[in-house]
Amino acid sequence: MGKIGLYVGRFQPFHLGHLEAIKYMLSRVDELVIVIGSAQYSHTSENPFTAGERVRMIRLALTEAEIDPSKYLTIPISDTGSHGVWVSYVLMRTPKFEVVYSNEPVTSRLFDEAGFKVEGIPFFNRDFYSATFIRSRMLNDQGWEKFVPRSVAEYIKEIEGVRRIKDIAGTDKPQ
Amino acid sequence: MGKIGLYVGRFQPFHLGHLEAIKYMLSRVDELVIVIGSAQYSHTSENPFTAGERVRMIRLALTEAEIDPSKYLTIPISDTGSHGVWVSYVLMRTPKFEVVYSNEPVTSRLFDEAGFKVEGIPFFNRDFYSATFIRSRMLNDQGWEKFVPRSVAEYIKEIEGVRRIKDIAGTDKPQ
Amino acid sequence: MGKIGLYVGRFQPFHLGHLEAIKYMLSRVDELVIVIGSAQYSHTSENPFTAGERVRMIRLALTEAEIDPSKYLTIPISDTGSHGVWVSYVLMRTPKFEVVYSNEPVTSRLFDEAGFKVEGIPFFNRDFYSATFIRSRMLNDQGWEKFVPRSVAEYIKEIEGVRRIKDIAGTDKPQ
Amino acid sequence: MGKIGLYVGRFQPFHLGHLEAIKYMLSRVDELVIVIGSAQYSHTSENPFTAGERVRMIRLALTEAEIDPSKYLTIPISDTGSHGVWVSYVLMRTPKFEVVYSNEPVTSRLFDEAGFKVEGIPFFNRDFYSATFIRSRMLNDQGWEKFVPRSVAEYIKEIEGVRRIKDIAGTDKPQ
Amino acid sequence: MGKIGLYVGRFQPFHLGHLEAIKYMLSRVDELVIVIGSAQYSHTSENPFTAGERVRMIRLALTEAEIDPSKYLTIPISDTGSHGVWVSYVLMRTPKFEVVYSNEPVTSRLFDEAGFKVEGIPFFNRDFYSATFIRSRMLNDQGWEKFVPRSVAEYIKEIEGVRRIKDIAGTDKPQ
Amino acid sequence: MGKIGLYVGRFQPFHLGHLEAIKYMLSRVDELVIVIGSAQYSHTSENPFTAGERVRMIRLALTEAEIDPSKYLTIPISDTGSHGVWVSYVLMRTPKFEVVYSNEPVTSRLFDEAGFKVEGIPFFNRDFYSATFIRSRMLNDQGWEKFVPRSVAEYIKEIEGVRRIKDIAGTDKPQ
Repeated sequence: MGKIGLYVGRFQPFHLGHLEAIKYMLSRVDELVIVIGSAQYSHTSENPFTAGERVRMIRLALTEAEIDPSKYLTIPISDTGSHGVWVSYVLMRTPKFEVVYSNEPVTSRLFDEAGFKVEGIPFFNRDFYSATFIRSRMLNDQGWEKFVPRSVAEYIKEIEGVRRIKDIAGTDKPQ
Repeated sequence: MGKIGLYVGRFQPFHLGHLEAIKYMLSRVDELVIVIGSAQYSHTSENPFTAGERVRMIRLALTEAEIDPSKYLTIPISDTGSHGVWVSYVLMRTPKFEVVYSNEPVTSRLFDEAGFKVEGIPFFNRDFYSATFIRSRMLNDQGWEKFVPRSVAEYIKEIEGVRRIKDIAGTDKPQ
Repeated sequence: MGKIGLYVGRFQPFHLGHLEAIKYMLSRVDELVIVIGSAQYSHTSENPFTAGERVRMIRLALTEAEIDPSKYLTIPISDTGSHGVWVSYVLMRTPKFEVVYSNEPVTSRLFDEAGFKVEGIPFFNRDFYSATFIRSRMLNDQGWEKFVPRSVAEYIKEIEGVRRIKDIAGTDKPQ
Repeated sequence: MGKIGLYVGRFQPFHLGHLEAIKYMLSRVDELVIVIGSAQYSHTSENPFTAGERVRMIRLALTEAEIDPSKYLTIPISDTGSHGVWVSYVLMRTPKFEVVYSNEPVTSRLFDEAGFKVEGIPFFNRDFYSATFIRSRMLNDQGWEKFVPRSVAEYIKEIEGVRRIKDIAGTDKPQ
Repeated sequence: MGKIGLYVGRFQPFHLGHLEAIKYMLSRVDELVIVIGSAQYSHTSENPFTAGERVRMIRLALTEAEIDPSKYLTIPISDTGSHGVWVSYVLMRTPKFEVVYSNEPVTSRLFDEAGFKVEGIPFFNRDFYSATFIRSRMLNDQGWEKFVPRSVAEYIKEIEGVRRIKDIAGTDKPQ
Repeated sequence: MGKIGLYVGRFQPFHLGHLEAIKYMLSRVDELVIVIGSAQYSHTSENPFTAGERVRMIRLALTEAEIDPSKYLTIPISDTGSHGVWVSYVLMRTPKFEVVYSNEPVTSRLFDEAGFKVEGIPFFNRDFYSATFIRSRMLNDQGWEKFVPRSVAEYIKEIEGVRRIKDIAGTDKPQ
């Protein structure tokens, strides 16, 4: 089946840095399993979009980038509340893979402890291609569209994502 | 069955602002379903009282205010850890209602997305009628009784609520 | 506040046996806390009705029976999956009570172990006043209305409860 | 984005009946969201394969059938333990869809109650194309390969699926 | 630290077959980690005793058998509801071990898949030394004491274990 | 069985202050049940070590201190997310005890409300014997070994605990 990689992100929202990272990984593996983490969250400042919306963003962005849809899978996965079971929780929900791409220290360490090969991802202009930075610009009516794929910007407008981020700012509702 | 409203609060503790809000809502609906949120919490600085104690406070306060007990129901509901399922979690545990009263932005947005009519509640002297303010006064031995219904103040004394708030201040026990 | 009792049931649906039991208990206590157990379930053969629908049934039935609404409270409570924490889970969500009414052996034993006074409830024609029996008659188009309070029968018709029970019979959908 | 459908199954294992069903649905919608239900289970008689293995089976089968991978998405979703929140749990994890395909009575009813259009799926030789039947043949060393796509049969052999089913038969290990 | 083994059981109750098994394992390893599974259950026909009571039974029995308490550890572990995460859930809660002793097919297979050496345990008169058999004798007032260590029999009498088993027989209370 | 005490800690890591506390308690009870709290956490700045590693640290430290292993038991217990059920969650998983040793205000209050005798523990040089202080020294390459028992220091080196703490510092991975 060729070499298969795993890539974990929250994609709140999916941006051009994610796209470059995926292109990089797809140059090194035959198939990429993209895990959409923290899948249970939405409607918070950190996690405004549902996992389903993030699935759609990725499909739109990779189609726009003319990436062959047979080369990747998207799998939403909730947090487990316990790092010690997280790797096996991911393994249960993903097809078999050989290499994990991650710059996140705990993710890297947990997969390394579980015996997986873990590789870093080159950063692509991290100042601009950061989901936190983009959400902040959305909240403050600053231009954000150029940091995400065109189709993702359109989708966020279609679902009125910026209004959602503004609506929920400053809430103290517990989850 | 007439028009039925929903009102969600944590009531830590129930105060005169809550009472005024309920009177306002009962002037506009025939029955009010009062959801006691974050029902799983107690013995924390933010949530000192159990859901059962909050049920009792509401019953005492509304009886003292001579509100007909056939006009309201109290339903304790735990947080779900996921905004995306919270509305359906509430719907399962409450009789059918037509309108939601809320000033909390995420609560309002979630019910709005689910197709409910959501209305705001006029504030009644929010400087004084705030549960955070009242808990802070309890902790610091400042007068707090005048901000809650008389029967609620008596009940809090009976269960030694102020001592509980002091006992648990400064804990680092995880929940 | 007078003597307070606790009564736990699933009320799938609320029937005349439940009503007689509540009348009996209200002759012995000043206030009754009615716990609607297995609150997380609905749309199954054993638990067709949501907790919210069961709250409504009880309110309708006790109003029809002219029982003073200041004499009782209804509290939906989910199963915990662990008998050893169930009593404390109930205690957190209910106002303080002195006596537990139950004929269910595990419920009785758990409250007894926790130091509560537990009393049995006289049965009122258990052949007919059994929720299992009534659900079976609903499924098989046999008369069931006479076993429940009139207002409950009307409510079940209003929410098309019998059609729901038929729709879900024979499913193998896991919960 | 065209018309989007939802299809929920357990796919234990994916068989030719599932394939025919998907072809039927793809003749009626532009994109199909395939939910792999009961995603938390594996290594049981009813659910021998992990969700990740089921993702792989579907990808293999639809590739073998020359179905365009841009026409479908696979989303593993765990059971919630509560029918009343299940629809919103699915909605959070799936892109927006218009129509639900299902012959399962509770699934159909829950989506219908939530306001979705629900359509049945024609059965394709249900005697043979049943996952229960196929698992039983695997367990009893009867031919089962002809009931699943060729690539799925190969994959099950590669992961030694039949040995797993035999190994776990007759266990009484609780989950 | 020497060779360390893992042994998983429910011990409902601990009986002479368990004792023989532990002696066998301690003849082959330097230390034994005894996992008390299904730790969340008690007060059911299958799981009458709490995990804490089972910890006490094991300590009593191994002391009676003059087994050095530095040679074993007892760790209560709840079921996870998902076989795919169970091994990592156990690994998080236990000191490192090299070999797993088990005759239970799913336990054996899960540890084998995780890369552990798994060995079977010789059976010691399984007709009599079966917890199911012993619970059945307790329920039916048949002699059961000779099948468990003397100190365990005394302990079960002290906590009135037989009365508990009888009390809870025939309940239909959901957990 | 003599007098039995309960002691709850997180032991991240086990240090000389814990050891002194245990010696103090063992001078007052015949057996000590040591609960390893927050058992579900590991690989975080606050909780770097797994519960199993903490079990091992305690066994090593008490063996080094020549404490009779028949005098204590170690029981890992997860947080429950709800203070109101925590005591009964502990009670289910521990053998019966008479006295609770704790300086933690919520732990003390919860056991006190549940009717237990709660006693404080004298502090042994709290400036140095604090797990937070020790973890901070580990992170910053300052000497930490002298604050823990020698066998614990060796064990932490064997499992490369300091590297783990450095690896995971500064992560933003949600749990």
